[in-house]
Amino acid sequence: MTRWPTPEPMQRALELARMAAEAGEVPVGAVVVKHGAIIGEGHNLTRTSSDPTAHAEVVAIRRAAEALGSERLEGCALFVTLEPCAMCAGAIAHARLASLTYAASDPKGGGVEHGARVFEQAQCHHRPEVYTGIGEAEAADLLRGFFAGRR
Amino acid sequence: MTRWPTPEPMQRALELARMAAEAGEVPVGAVVVKHGAIIGEGHNLTRTSSDPTAHAEVVAIRRAAEALGSERLEGCALFVTLEPCAMCAGAIAHARLASLTYAASDPKGGGVEHGARVFEQAQCHHRPEVYTGIGEAEAADLLRGFFAGRR
Repeated sequence: MTRWPTPEPMQRALELARMAAEAGEVPVGAVVVKHGAIIGEGHNLTRTSSDPTAHAEVVAIRRAAEALGSERLEGCALFVTLEPCAMCAGAIAHARLASLTYAASDPKGGGVEHGARVFEQAQCHHRPEVYTGIGEAEAADLLRGFFAGRR
Repeated sequence: MTRWPTPEPMQRALELARMAAEAGEVPVGAVVVKHGAIIGEGHNLTRTSSDPTAHAEVVAIRRAAEALGSERLEGCALFVTLEPCAMCAGAIAHARLASLTYAASDPKGGGVEHGARVFEQAQCHHRPEVYTGIGEAEAADLLRGFFAGRR
């Protein structure tokens, strides 16, 4: 029996999430891929950088946009270890990302399949393809371990 | 007859919106105020900075958080010329801003009183006081003029 392999970009996102935990940040990691290559990546940095907007997705998107010299990431795919919140879902729409793949869903803070459901609103001007569940056990374990260790 | 005066922070936000238009950016401006003083301000910069997250609110929040050296803007007020989108509403919640005052509402892209209604969701962990309508005619005129000039 062979376990279905986690795609490389999600493996890298999980690695970034582990790096976040080591830095005392909530363990979420994200990468932006274009034509198979990572053009931007990051993990939560809100504490380290004193920036409430520095979620993994926003960090990765800003770096990818800077690398391309464009505010639009057309044809690019975002991989992130946790369901994006409303802020990050909005950023994904503004960036015109072609697809979003996230590992674990987030009933408490998510804004894609929960709560704000940003992509389902008429006010959302771009909807990525959305894929979920690949790498979710590992992503969820990282978060559980992080919050258990802080109690 | 005397017209009710527009509060100074909103006057500054409108000035920033005019500066955005001059720079070829969508004319929206925002300021963050603490104890009566502006600690962060900005206007849309998405094109100039190749950053899809650089809406006026995000720019102002990031600068204010940098100025305070904290990811939390507790006790601070945000003034912005247009109803925030879902991304910016999420950023406002993450920043723990005490209040949000916006001039014009935005049925096509707003995420406060329209669409995602970010602050009304159980997944939103902080809700600012929300005030609207002060300076709305001027803010809406700026946007109409900008988009009319681009057709």
